[in-house]
Amino acid sequence: MPTYHKPESKTIQELKDIAHKLRIHSIASTQASKSGHPTSCASIAEIMSVLFFNTMRYKISAPRDPSSDRFILSKGHAAPILYAAWAEAGLFPVSLGQGVAVGCGMAYVGKNIDKTDYRTYVLVGDGESAEGSVWESLHFAGHYKLDNMCVIFDVNRLGQSEPQHQMDVYRKRLEAFGFNAIVVDGHDVEELCKAFYEASVTKDRPTAIVAKTFKGKHFPNIEDLENWHGKPLGDAANAVVEHLKSLIRNNGPLQITPPSPQKESAKKVDISHIKLATPPAYQLGESVATRLAYGTALAKIAMNNDRVIALDGDTKNSTYSDKLRKAFPERFIECFIAEQNLCGVAIGAACRDRTVAFVSTFATFFSRAFDQIRMGAISQTNVNFVGSHCGVSIGEDGPSQMGLEDIAMFRAIPGSTVFYPSDAVSTERAVEMAANTKGVCFIRTSRPNTAVIYDNNEPFVIGKAKIVKQSANDTVLLIGAGITLYEALNAVHARVMDPFTVKPIDKEAIIQHAAQCGGRIVVVEDHYKQGGLGEAVLSAVAEQRNVVVKHLGVDEVPRSGPPTVLIDMYGISARCIVAAVNDVLKM
Amino acid sequence: MPTYHKPESKTIQELKDIAHKLRIHSIASTQASKSGHPTSCASIAEIMSVLFFNTMRYKISAPRDPSSDRFILSKGHAAPILYAAWAEAGLFPVSLGQGVAVGCGMAYVGKNIDKTDYRTYVLVGDGESAEGSVWESLHFAGHYKLDNMCVIFDVNRLGQSEPQHQMDVYRKRLEAFGFNAIVVDGHDVEELCKAFYEASVTKDRPTAIVAKTFKGKHFPNIEDLENWHGKPLGDAANAVVEHLKSLIRNNGPLQITPPSPQKESAKKVDISHIKLATPPAYQLGESVATRLAYGTALAKIAMNNDRVIALDGDTKNSTYSDKLRKAFPERFIECFIAEQNLCGVAIGAACRDRTVAFVSTFATFFSRAFDQIRMGAISQTNVNFVGSHCGVSIGEDGPSQMGLEDIAMFRAIPGSTVFYPSDAVSTERAVEMAANTKGVCFIRTSRPNTAVIYDNNEPFVIGKAKIVKQSANDTVLLIGAGITLYEALNAVHARVMDPFTVKPIDKEAIIQHAAQCGGRIVVVEDHYKQGGLGEAVLSAVAEQRNVVVKHLGVDEVPRSGPPTVLIDMYGISARCIVAAVNDVLKM
Repeated sequence: MPTYHKPESKTIQELKDIAHKLRIHSIASTQASKSGHPTSCASIAEIMSVLFFNTMRYKISAPRDPSSDRFILSKGHAAPILYAAWAEAGLFPVSLGQGVAVGCGMAYVGKNIDKTDYRTYVLVGDGESAEGSVWESLHFAGHYKLDNMCVIFDVNRLGQSEPQHQMDVYRKRLEAFGFNAIVVDGHDVEELCKAFYEASVTKDRPTAIVAKTFKGKHFPNIEDLENWHGKPLGDAANAVVEHLKSLIRNNGPLQITPPSPQKESAKKVDISHIKLATPPAYQLGESVATRLAYGTALAKIAMNNDRVIALDGDTKNSTYSDKLRKAFPERFIECFIAEQNLCGVAIGAACRDRTVAFVSTFATFFSRAFDQIRMGAISQTNVNFVGSHCGVSIGEDGPSQMGLEDIAMFRAIPGSTVFYPSDAVSTERAVEMAANTKGVCFIRTSRPNTAVIYDNNEPFVIGKAKIVKQSANDTVLLIGAGITLYEALNAVHARVMDPFTVKPIDKEAIIQHAAQCGGRIVVVEDHYKQGGLGEAVLSAVAEQRNVVVKHLGVDEVPRSGPPTVLIDMYGISARCIVAAVNDVLKM
Repeated sequence: MPTYHKPESKTIQELKDIAHKLRIHSIASTQASKSGHPTSCASIAEIMSVLFFNTMRYKISAPRDPSSDRFILSKGHAAPILYAAWAEAGLFPVSLGQGVAVGCGMAYVGKNIDKTDYRTYVLVGDGESAEGSVWESLHFAGHYKLDNMCVIFDVNRLGQSEPQHQMDVYRKRLEAFGFNAIVVDGHDVEELCKAFYEASVTKDRPTAIVAKTFKGKHFPNIEDLENWHGKPLGDAANAVVEHLKSLIRNNGPLQITPPSPQKESAKKVDISHIKLATPPAYQLGESVATRLAYGTALAKIAMNNDRVIALDGDTKNSTYSDKLRKAFPERFIECFIAEQNLCGVAIGAACRDRTVAFVSTFATFFSRAFDQIRMGAISQTNVNFVGSHCGVSIGEDGPSQMGLEDIAMFRAIPGSTVFYPSDAVSTERAVEMAANTKGVCFIRTSRPNTAVIYDNNEPFVIGKAKIVKQSANDTVLLIGAGITLYEALNAVHARVMDPFTVKPIDKEAIIQHAAQCGGRIVVVEDHYKQGGLGEAVLSAVAEQRNVVVKHLGVDEVPRSGPPTVLIDMYGISARCIVAAVNDVLKM
């Protein structure tokens, strides 16, 4: 291990001063906004000072330079001190309980895809470390030996369930999860400088710095007391600020600047205009599961752009993300059965446009990561989620494995695009478009084989539906997707629409074709009735008088059984569509 | 510690025989259903044999007797062997990755509420132990010293990310989380008997039995090999069954029966007809937040029935569940910032109708536990979820804390009831009704104070809306709830409806009043537009010609700001309602 040289005493003093200045800034900003957690900021003032002015390598003029070290404030309550520490900062993910996963994604990319030396620092509060997702992520970091990652635990005790500083409990748990764990006094800048140095020279395992701190440190009559969580200081602010000012030795301009990145080795990458390496190549009528077409398309876009990566939660053989792993093993990240971390790692991997990330698992298992996806959208992530095994059509594996709420979940993500392709050709195009679309994308794929209905050259557009069957005197418009589109095609003579995307839905086409069909729509979906395709259609025609919609969907917890039996039992088969058409013709 | 006496050699042989019989049953059932995981069953055959025929105390004639020990198969893949082991079983939660939380709930109730000696056993697969929720729950069990709980880890290595049996990693992690960890050969019935005995006499901490096993144990040419996960044996079945039969010594009837519960100490409890101890007591026009009314009502029903309990995820001061804690501290379970475990513990606590459980946190944080709630519904849980701080009306705390997808999520839970009370009186009644309603209930509460609009004696019914303002010549029906109901009341002269429940929604009343108002509806909600109140209303009028709906809701990620500013900025204020009414009058 290289020798550690401790900073000069002048630097140490300056770092102490900066910590107090950060405290003052945090008080000022929380007073102004009448909201926030100044005492939580105070507990990490020295940690932030050392990280931002001694340890981390970055250019203040270009904080988002790809070669810079990364910092993630998982302890979201302490956001004011982050802004104080680095007012010029770019976008930082601030996400209570989710930062370790995001950091894992950044560190994994740094080590294995960028293959360069920037480091990733994640600051975690002790309260949030009760979240299981934190432990999923620590396991991931330990498993993949992410020695370019350093997780700092701010143990200020008041966020904990125990009234003591349980430093040893943290140390043992972190060691058991594969970390180099270093316990420090979180208010001692010398100890912090040394610990961060040790972290930077530790190989083959990530480091955790477990910092013993006090909430409201250096706030007289507030430090380490209960009942000051999440409150601006109010009338107490002035006295505290005066006290802090008295602790500062050098009130002049800063004498130190953060170290620069050692080398500008993280190359610029281009993730625009991603295309399928070869167009879809199917025969009309050929029987192909859309989940298989997903795997095929994923490998094709990965061939076209070396920044396309795939992540999976131990379901790669079923979702067919395995096709990317076989073609480009170094661009596949196995995240095991830990969906919160899976989604968080993808969000981290896609940060700063370093990769185009596709995350796959069974559609229903994304319900474990709804909060991660929600927070990802708030942080403007561009991750693409692909959920297989949707609906009762999966059959024997039973309701725990059936995605029946996934459209409802992804439609309720702001700014999302929800693809529900019905054949292999449209699935390949959905994958290609998702790779180039900002915001959260979701692609819903099906387990059973279904017929190819589109020509390989058929163009697709987000928000544009296809009419797959029509005649001049249609009296009902049928709308289905995936398995139910085929049931609709087999049902009756009617106009049949494939929406392609459920969000945005093709409002204009629905209104136009509904009008041509006597204002009668039957919509049928392999999903619960709430929040899915049916309600998307209802929203599209909400402001139309003279349109009626008959909506077929799953209405109860399904059983296990053969797919064809279940589709009929839960009212979405061709037979049920015929009955619905007869009903709607009377309306 | 009492002395351990090992079973007679005859019993040991019988337990070995039973293990092989269970293997044979698992093969038979997975062959018949053409689905399932017989190799996963084989790895736990001895564990199941010892648990069900040597360790657990229960009456085969009355498996759900409250004094019986509990068993939870978290390793859901192995369900066939559970059914084989106990074909007469009642409802067992079988929930991949969620069993430890459910077990924690049962064990907590056993120790602290039933205060009796039944024990809870949870069998966990090694693959699922990657789920962070498992570690949330282990932390909970360690923290609350649940020595009446025993978690068995089936480490069969093929489910793991590592190719070795990492017994020591499991032991260290479990010890660090507060467990008495015992590593055993999972195929040695003598070792198992002894370990379960040790678990039963260990005080002040839960026990984890870490069992080294092999997938497909005793299946020739299959044992411990890859590529046999999740598949029936097919053509290989007959040879395997013949081999297993050759291993059985006693083919006659069973010589042993499971031990009986030591005492019938778990009393019968009555959780029917729960009522508010005193009726709502407000002044019309008084300003009270619905979240506060929730806390008041919770304490009142707890006064009426000693089986009402509350659980919270470190937000009790904000959700007002603290009111129950103050009145009945022993019936409040603090689950810290760990929402997956929070919901799982509640599901466990409510099992076998031992308690009426109310779980509260910020509405949006339930998105972390969507899968737990989904699986709870599949297992027919009756847990009540209460989400506070809904919508942009929370103001300064920003989008990460705003519940804007919670209605979409809870509507998509099969069989759920979704309450969205608009004042304190209706909130108290919602709490009372939820306590008596089967299935998942969700109550959405608001942060700001709002006026009491109902008389204390006003009756409420699930699925019945209230008309809060009307005249004979209304031309528009306004539908709002919570904060938007007040905006609607302040907007214009129009008929105003309070739906009270969003699911079921009062379809009949909506259709009737819409017809009386010229077929014009404006619906306004503090929620994303997808899956919320608006789409519930659209579903209600789907089959009506001649009704138009103008829908106001939040359409993007909101900012932080003062509530009144945000309500206007995101288009759901009285001003925006007036504009929407003017629009809809032209339709």
